[in-house]
Amino acid sequence: MTRVAIEETVLSANDRIAAQLRVALDASGALALNFISSPGSGKTALLEETLKLLPHSTRAAVLTGDIQTDNDAQRLLRYGYPVRQICTGGACHLDARMVVAHLEDWQKFELLLIENVGNLVCPTSYDLGEDAKVVVLSVTEGEDKPLKYPGIFRKAELMVLNKIDLLPYVPFHVRLARENARRIHPEIKIIETSCTTGAGLSQWMSWLADRARRKTRTPLATAATSQP
Amino acid sequence: MTRVAIEETVLSANDRIAAQLRVALDASGALALNFISSPGSGKTALLEETLKLLPHSTRAAVLTGDIQTDNDAQRLLRYGYPVRQICTGGACHLDARMVVAHLEDWQKFELLLIENVGNLVCPTSYDLGEDAKVVVLSVTEGEDKPLKYPGIFRKAELMVLNKIDLLPYVPFHVRLARENARRIHPEIKIIETSCTTGAGLSQWMSWLADRARRKTRTPLATAATSQP
Repeated sequence: MTRVAIEETVLSANDRIAAQLRVALDASGALALNFISSPGSGKTALLEETLKLLPHSTRAAVLTGDIQTDNDAQRLLRYGYPVRQICTGGACHLDARMVVAHLEDWQKFELLLIENVGNLVCPTSYDLGEDAKVVVLSVTEGEDKPLKYPGIFRKAELMVLNKIDLLPYVPFHVRLARENARRIHPEIKIIETSCTTGAGLSQWMSWLADRARRKTRTPLATAATSQP
Repeated sequence: MTRVAIEETVLSANDRIAAQLRVALDASGALALNFISSPGSGKTALLEETLKLLPHSTRAAVLTGDIQTDNDAQRLLRYGYPVRQICTGGACHLDARMVVAHLEDWQKFELLLIENVGNLVCPTSYDLGEDAKVVVLSVTEGEDKPLKYPGIFRKAELMVLNKIDLLPYVPFHVRLARENARRIHPEIKIIETSCTTGAGLSQWMSWLADRARRKTRTPLATAATSQP
């Protein structure tokens, strides 16, 4: 059995589980996003800001993948939403089976944020049943990352260009990064953010609200409007 | 056949090729280093500075791994040393077979610098026949990276803490990063560098020269002393 054949077997098994998960998520009307980036691009910080800015009554839930620690879950738990750590025990990506296992016995949610293991390569191949992949790129990385790691930029619906507060101190060309991303994926949506200054976060939250509306045809946290 | 068993089969095949490569490199007296980091930590910039600072007559050679492009090879070719790109065609790491294939017909060298694919996880498992792994961590990443990706920090002989010129602008605690690295690997050597300001590069070049001396029992580029 060749290596490629082995990989295909593993991936097609994953795809079956992911397809079942997608059906279940669709039935419940929940929007699921799969965040993928290099280590250190600021995924966890972006999720922290997201949880701070979400309408309070949003039934959000977070799964955060890590090879070894639960540091990210500890950071995310401070915002009052349910968070579960998926410790992959060495694996360099989440797979659909891990997600299913960690959703068990969880209360109904309308927004599922999945923070993948920090890795631009392998997580790209594993469908988690999500509605959209979001790739986070930091301006401290090279602007050629979309060309060097085309897989994730092709599959992501949105690229969050993060840490733009550092632009004065790094040799990063925003226009070139945007062009490179669009060369790989002409329709990719791009939002520039800084979790330090708050720049771009309202645009990101609008994208999120709009994406949820398109999925569920109801705004996020409609429950809020019916509460006193 | 379980997934773990498949991985073990692939890895043990790699280990056999790596062991043969190590024997050949040892016989030729060449020092081989395997550079591993996240995308965007500055591996290529560090190698560029290294090639600039090496004694001119050093018989150095560079292999640089990338999933898709030859951007890094183009950057590294400017310094007058032989450079070959290993395009992995989707694979998230280099393996020993790729290295062997790209060393064919190459002139004798005394220093082989191997830049792995940007990925903190999978490259860790693939022995390339190197003398030492060098992990590059940028201060724009979290200082908890050694705890979150312990595999590479345990296996690396040296951690290069790069981009220290950005310390005034990022919430990175150098002491904590050092402590975390030493928790995982008490003997790891740590050098702080900036390829922008040049800070720490002389210390890095000293480490490199010393490591070559320990391997070959002759200084790098002894040929230089016999030239007019």
